[in-house]
Amino acid sequence: MGSIHAGVQKRSWKTRLEAKEKRIAQMKDITRDNIIPTNRIVEALENLITPGDRVVLEGNNQKQAAFLSEALSQTNPKKLYDLHMIISSISRPEHLDLFELGIAKKIDFSYAGPQSLRMAQMLEDGKLTMGEIHTYVELYGRLFIDLIPSIALVAADKADSAGNLYTGANTEETPTLVEAAAFRDGIVIAQVNELTDELPRVDIPGSWIDYVVVADKPYQLEPLFTRDPRHITDIQVLQAMMMIRGIYERHEVQSLNHGIGYNTAAIELLLPTYGESLGLKGKICKHWALNPHPTLIPAIESGWVESVHCFGGEVGMEKYVESRRDVFFTGRDGSLRSNRTLCQLAGQYAVDLFVGSTLQIDRMGNSSTVTSGRLAGFGGAPNMGHDPGGRRHSTPAWLNMMTHDDPLARGRKLVVQVAETFQTGNKPVFVESLDALDVKNDTGLATTPIMIYGEDVTHVVTEEGIAYLYKATSIEERKRAIEAIAGVTPIGLKHDVKRSDKLRKEGLIALPEDLGIRRTDAKRSLLAAKNVADLVDWSEGLYEPPMKFRSW
Amino acid sequence: MGSIHAGVQKRSWKTRLEAKEKRIAQMKDITRDNIIPTNRIVEALENLITPGDRVVLEGNNQKQAAFLSEALSQTNPKKLYDLHMIISSISRPEHLDLFELGIAKKIDFSYAGPQSLRMAQMLEDGKLTMGEIHTYVELYGRLFIDLIPSIALVAADKADSAGNLYTGANTEETPTLVEAAAFRDGIVIAQVNELTDELPRVDIPGSWIDYVVVADKPYQLEPLFTRDPRHITDIQVLQAMMMIRGIYERHEVQSLNHGIGYNTAAIELLLPTYGESLGLKGKICKHWALNPHPTLIPAIESGWVESVHCFGGEVGMEKYVESRRDVFFTGRDGSLRSNRTLCQLAGQYAVDLFVGSTLQIDRMGNSSTVTSGRLAGFGGAPNMGHDPGGRRHSTPAWLNMMTHDDPLARGRKLVVQVAETFQTGNKPVFVESLDALDVKNDTGLATTPIMIYGEDVTHVVTEEGIAYLYKATSIEERKRAIEAIAGVTPIGLKHDVKRSDKLRKEGLIALPEDLGIRRTDAKRSLLAAKNVADLVDWSEGLYEPPMKFRSW
Repeated sequence: MGSIHAGVQKRSWKTRLEAKEKRIAQMKDITRDNIIPTNRIVEALENLITPGDRVVLEGNNQKQAAFLSEALSQTNPKKLYDLHMIISSISRPEHLDLFELGIAKKIDFSYAGPQSLRMAQMLEDGKLTMGEIHTYVELYGRLFIDLIPSIALVAADKADSAGNLYTGANTEETPTLVEAAAFRDGIVIAQVNELTDELPRVDIPGSWIDYVVVADKPYQLEPLFTRDPRHITDIQVLQAMMMIRGIYERHEVQSLNHGIGYNTAAIELLLPTYGESLGLKGKICKHWALNPHPTLIPAIESGWVESVHCFGGEVGMEKYVESRRDVFFTGRDGSLRSNRTLCQLAGQYAVDLFVGSTLQIDRMGNSSTVTSGRLAGFGGAPNMGHDPGGRRHSTPAWLNMMTHDDPLARGRKLVVQVAETFQTGNKPVFVESLDALDVKNDTGLATTPIMIYGEDVTHVVTEEGIAYLYKATSIEERKRAIEAIAGVTPIGLKHDVKRSDKLRKEGLIALPEDLGIRRTDAKRSLLAAKNVADLVDWSEGLYEPPMKFRSW
Repeated sequence: MGSIHAGVQKRSWKTRLEAKEKRIAQMKDITRDNIIPTNRIVEALENLITPGDRVVLEGNNQKQAAFLSEALSQTNPKKLYDLHMIISSISRPEHLDLFELGIAKKIDFSYAGPQSLRMAQMLEDGKLTMGEIHTYVELYGRLFIDLIPSIALVAADKADSAGNLYTGANTEETPTLVEAAAFRDGIVIAQVNELTDELPRVDIPGSWIDYVVVADKPYQLEPLFTRDPRHITDIQVLQAMMMIRGIYERHEVQSLNHGIGYNTAAIELLLPTYGESLGLKGKICKHWALNPHPTLIPAIESGWVESVHCFGGEVGMEKYVESRRDVFFTGRDGSLRSNRTLCQLAGQYAVDLFVGSTLQIDRMGNSSTVTSGRLAGFGGAPNMGHDPGGRRHSTPAWLNMMTHDDPLARGRKLVVQVAETFQTGNKPVFVESLDALDVKNDTGLATTPIMIYGEDVTHVVTEEGIAYLYKATSIEERKRAIEAIAGVTPIGLKHDVKRSDKLRKEGLIALPEDLGIRRTDAKRSLLAAKNVADLVDWSEGLYEPPMKFRSW
């Protein structure tokens, strides 16, 4: 049988391991153990990384391995060049400096919110090569298929001498990035705030980590999910009332995800007041895939919330979470255990409903937050904001979306888009054509960067009312329902009163009065907390808001 | 501000922790550390579990926590009853004995292959309450939302005295099940084959584990993904040639998942022969989400495969994988690191193509492996076998599925169904109505248990040819294309030659001759390995097949 593969050339099957060992051997003048001295990190990176390497750098919308990204930007471009960077969220200036300096060449990413303008400009100027724009979980998936990293640069709170990592509340994407590199003979370098003899718990085993470095300052952490109730408007209260009544109650929504936004913060703050008055406690909104939103505190304190699983942590919520461990996922040490990968998975497959805000919606219900000149990416919204075709289990809300009795009919995930008909600056949200189409043409993207596709949207909510798009039996009907709640935007002006009355009767749209809501009742006074101080009070002083949210 | 929540009653926020501490206190006569004596496991389970508990028991289609499931079935039903079991795969008799004995009451699961007949019978007899049928990842997702376990019973290879676990090649779903329980004040009990002072690597940190017990014998492990090339037929060779030519080459499929089956094994074994002759090496089939299939060995040895990420291990492939670490994900110790959750995520979002076999296809392309009287469940197929609506990045194959130039057009995942027109026993695969419809009616399921929905299927392959369903512009055209390749089944007999010629010209179907394949060339002699001994030879003796696959 030897003849079968006689022609096959002998090759090494451990080239990745050999490359790793060679690089580690170059480190002997810098460190003899796994701890890199803080002041020698630049040199260490120059030894451990090789031109052309695929480097995954931790940086999502909350936690940033800032010490490592700064150090990488200080390496010598004659030594390190043509790196292929993989970054969930391009959030810090040096993420793009790497390309200006010639250290990095290609980028694959999910989100570029804070750097989206510069990103688009650099792409236009040919200063970087763009791979693809992903959702978080797509990018994580590719780390195990065709974007396997050689280097992982990540951040944790603490390490012990064996390299075990403690991430505290902000485990987030760290274990997934580390797993992809560590188990393919890649090199994993973790910046930590502190070295310690004994960790509160182990979040990532030391045998997955090659080097630890103590950062010059704690990793950057953004309080991204904190919304000050002071900024919630009466209109947002009205929309929140409609959603509680016309969506959550009507479809019996028991498990859900809320994104960032004042609209959803308003819902959270109305549960203990308006929701309570409707007798809905224990019937809706029991299980959440959600960051620890401060605006959820009153609902938790009032007994609405059975469980919250978190993508990441939230600055200031640490002590509160520890004191409410019946509700949150926590370690033995009591601090939050978040996990972006698992929460995105749960948010996709295991919850009834997703709500997102948007900047533009077209007549078909397609929406995007991409606007001209900005390449913002997607984050996690498209993953949670679609009807997952792989789902097979049912819940009451999911089944409630069935509109016909075809023997093969199935339910749907509720995907809700909420917006006021005009953005600030008097720009209409409802448009004939999305800016995303121009962005596609300007940047040469293979497809138009749509955040949420109209076919996935079950409900659109504006200050005018709710369009129950899942009930539409034709494209024409879908358009009419959107027009009917699009206010005085150019799209909204197409609607006519007679047709809208018909849509109301058929249940394709509902106005506040159809839901038993008086517009005059929709007041900020209904909010369970009117400002951050109220949230602190609800939390019995356990919530410690960052300085910028304090007015006292 | 105190008045805001004056009416809220004081409650404990650590009831789960208190319950856990109470149970652990009851263990002091059995163990003073975290090691439960093997012969006291039944007693330990009676102390640690409480009636009504939600218990997640490790048991997927490969690895089984058999010692723990047997012990649980030996507990006293007067002490332990009404348990709510969560089991990925109901594979062992005692999984259902638990219900006969009254220890357990309700079941949520993904797959029940080996026990599907008894399962259906017990459901009919009212001996168990069924929750929902899921895909693997849906079930994992719910562990963090509304099916949070109080108890996790899992299996690993080795533990050290701190409870750190080494899972070797079979990490599979263990970390995910453990994370759900450990971080919600649940109790985690791991059976291990062996206690040791030093682990080869840590797969799960000891601070996530409450108790370790040495099992009386190693955990059960099924060689589920081993296909003996002897059983591959000439017809399967023909189908494999068509798929390589008409799908993989045509659409430039670079990353993919293959399920269990002789059809896909044939493709794997044709890459180094037929694929090589077409000059396709380096162009297709480079990145795999796949268990370590023995039939992939010749393609790996011939340099076709750049990477393989695995759901689980495969019995006998351990040494081979360790010696091919450039291709597989391995730990520092060299053994495979599998991860069912991450591989399912990658298989959903990060690969170009999924291929599945099926037992029944209807005229619309819907398919199911559910047959009357059996409640088999779904496993992972629906997760990978659909077009993920949340995907935003593109690849050449994905873009190749775009059939129109609408500005919002996007690509699709390739979802291929392969079947011979008749099953063994002369049962037609193409049917007017799926048995799954009867199963729905018989069991009272909320929806019909469809494995893969027709709307997700891009290609159907039979021995007659390929139907390119993604090109169909109407339901009628889709039906015609399926009829044209359905042979002499009642569905196939509806086709007429003229219409088929038209479909061929339009590229909606392709017969072997349209792909440059002569039926007479499709011979087993083309297979790179004709039997298991050939596979061993290709592997340079590193593959060690289980006894039942040895004929020497």
